[in-house]
Amino acid sequence: MSRVLGIDPGLANAGWGVIDVDGNRLTYVAHGSISTDSKIPAPVRLKEIFDQLSIIIEKFKPVEAGMETLYFAKNVKTALPVAEARGVLSLCMVQNGLMLSEYTPLQIKQAVVGNGRADKNQVQQMVKLILGLDKIPKPDHAADALAAAICHVHMRVLHV
Amino acid sequence: MSRVLGIDPGLANAGWGVIDVDGNRLTYVAHGSISTDSKIPAPVRLKEIFDQLSIIIEKFKPVEAGMETLYFAKNVKTALPVAEARGVLSLCMVQNGLMLSEYTPLQIKQAVVGNGRADKNQVQQMVKLILGLDKIPKPDHAADALAAAICHVHMRVLHV
Repeated sequence: MSRVLGIDPGLANAGWGVIDVDGNRLTYVAHGSISTDSKIPAPVRLKEIFDQLSIIIEKFKPVEAGMETLYFAKNVKTALPVAEARGVLSLCMVQNGLMLSEYTPLQIKQAVVGNGRADKNQVQQMVKLILGLDKIPKPDHAADALAAAICHVHMRVLHV
Repeated sequence: MSRVLGIDPGLANAGWGVIDVDGNRLTYVAHGSISTDSKIPAPVRLKEIFDQLSIIIEKFKPVEAGMETLYFAKNVKTALPVAEARGVLSLCMVQNGLMLSEYTPLQIKQAVVGNGRADKNQVQQMVKLILGLDKIPKPDHAADALAAAICHVHMRVLHV
């Protein structure tokens, strides 16, 4: 059995999700969102993200992690603050001894839906189905984080 | 008297420089570069950057810091890893209680040379002159970090 943390990175909102893996069986553990206030200085927001993720890791004790890579096609100005948050999230996982792998949005959609061009709703419906949940996890970032965790489990099976 | 840390952010090479400020008088303390190996995974490199900066802060005990912002006009693909490193450098300074301010390349050139369009060599010559050094600090990243520290001192005087 192994416990996997999934992360959808962000500065204002970062999603997280935790699942257990036992052979082919995935079990939902928890999910949520790390939020910071845009009115406080960026370096302080980065510390809050680090501190909040530290608490989550301390509580659920995952040993592996999958995090979504950044989509840099659109807007560089918005991508840079997210990349800074991503650096801090990576650091927090590595400092806590997690084995961290990174997946593109395409890999995550492919692994969860079987179609790299799946839309957000299809991904969320499959996350719900795969983990046997009553409803789609909210907020969206948390559902994306669970999708990253599911992707990690699929990809890591391929490596074994 | 206050001790100021300057940072020129980077993943492969981040420059750092430390100066003391006493009224209008600036005194050079130390400078150097934090390097990481491109052959190791990015999350591990981020941890190395954090660990190396922690040692520098522990050794020199600066209380304020100035860091250069990212220039995102050119290449997004190369900017994102630098932004991740920048996030980790920010976190390290905030965790250690430093007051961190951020300056654009234009602000730094303006503060150090008096001309926002100054070239690299002009900035380096002025860093040498202002700090009374025998030669230009090497590597370039460290000279840029000292320039960021000098800029911070100029800008903070304006705020007082």
